[in-house]
Amino acid sequence: MNSGVLIYSGGMDSTTLLYYLLHQNYHLKALSFNYGQRHAKELAAAAAICRKLDVPHQVVDLTAITGLIGGSSLTDPALPVPEGHYTGENMKITVVPNRNMIMLSIAIGHAIALKYDAVAYAAHSGDHTIYPDCRPVFVEAMKQVAGLCDWHPVKIATPFIKMDKGDIAELGLQLGVPFELTWTCYNGRDRHCGKCGACQERREAFFKHGLADPIQYEDFGFK
Amino acid sequence: MNSGVLIYSGGMDSTTLLYYLLHQNYHLKALSFNYGQRHAKELAAAAAICRKLDVPHQVVDLTAITGLIGGSSLTDPALPVPEGHYTGENMKITVVPNRNMIMLSIAIGHAIALKYDAVAYAAHSGDHTIYPDCRPVFVEAMKQVAGLCDWHPVKIATPFIKMDKGDIAELGLQLGVPFELTWTCYNGRDRHCGKCGACQERREAFFKHGLADPIQYEDFGFK
Repeated sequence: MNSGVLIYSGGMDSTTLLYYLLHQNYHLKALSFNYGQRHAKELAAAAAICRKLDVPHQVVDLTAITGLIGGSSLTDPALPVPEGHYTGENMKITVVPNRNMIMLSIAIGHAIALKYDAVAYAAHSGDHTIYPDCRPVFVEAMKQVAGLCDWHPVKIATPFIKMDKGDIAELGLQLGVPFELTWTCYNGRDRHCGKCGACQERREAFFKHGLADPIQYEDFGFK
Repeated sequence: MNSGVLIYSGGMDSTTLLYYLLHQNYHLKALSFNYGQRHAKELAAAAAICRKLDVPHQVVDLTAITGLIGGSSLTDPALPVPEGHYTGENMKITVVPNRNMIMLSIAIGHAIALKYDAVAYAAHSGDHTIYPDCRPVFVEAMKQVAGLCDWHPVKIATPFIKMDKGDIAELGLQLGVPFELTWTCYNGRDRHCGKCGACQERREAFFKHGLADPIQYEDFGFK
């Protein structure tokens, strides 16, 4: 049986990956990261879904490093979350410097300590435009380094790397993912705002594939 | 002028690297990491030396992840620090899972946020036997990933990668490094124990090059 540490945000991509890996009989430990994101609500979503599935879950408190990797509107309350399409140039303000490598390195360390085979994360093709650390070329380089950093090599599993978010929505519905429990919005308000890049991307994913998104948005102007 | 984030333990290697980079006119920020090491005394040494040099210094509190990367005698008080030669098989218990990649990833994130050119760390040839994350093959892979993880690429500077600890001692003495202020011992007692792998390696470095180590050890059986 394969074993892995899953980097788990509580959003729709990593929740689908969680269901997918369980479907593949992975023995999993899920790690969520509190890096000072304003949408820390996602951490509660992650915890609730792991409880439902009886998957061990831990929130890693990285707030001690939030100030070191500043300059992103995801962590700095002084910077507004941009609205608009997620591929827009103005979305680059949502990049948290080296966030993925930091999360991966800790997850790899944990996998080594547990003697697990792999670390999984839900990088997908839709992220490439904005997020340099979701690109296949970054993932390939991380695979190299994860195989060299310890006497116990760790694999990096990114089964969604060639899929777009619509493919993930479709797969998730097939796997019975409770999308109504996931959290996507970069604003951490009561409901999903529907206008930030993350909400726009989520809406587009369901819409393009003719699927229904069970969450409720603040506005109803876009279906 | 080059700018860099230095991973700075307060030991003799990274202190020599600090002096070396200042000698090369680097504009530096030094980061030390508290990952729950029993020799946290090194953090005070690092702070004191940075104050002396007027180099900005910050201790990053990673104690929230100590439990995730367990199994090392450097962080687990239940596991004794092994005595003997630093290349011995029994020294592998001092490896902290993926410690260097974790420190590097945070330092890279900080370098991106500061728009600095490079991250420097004092990997050297003597570490290769025990520590997989000091090997040139690991460093090369980290260089790749550090150039890809953000739109602002970061270089990894490891100028000591082909030197041994004796070469570093020699260089440090030329550069005026105050070795009496550095901390090396894996046990965090009042004085250096002289018997753990780290002390043995330090003693050997000075001894082989016919140099005097200004620190005092608990025992005096080895010169």
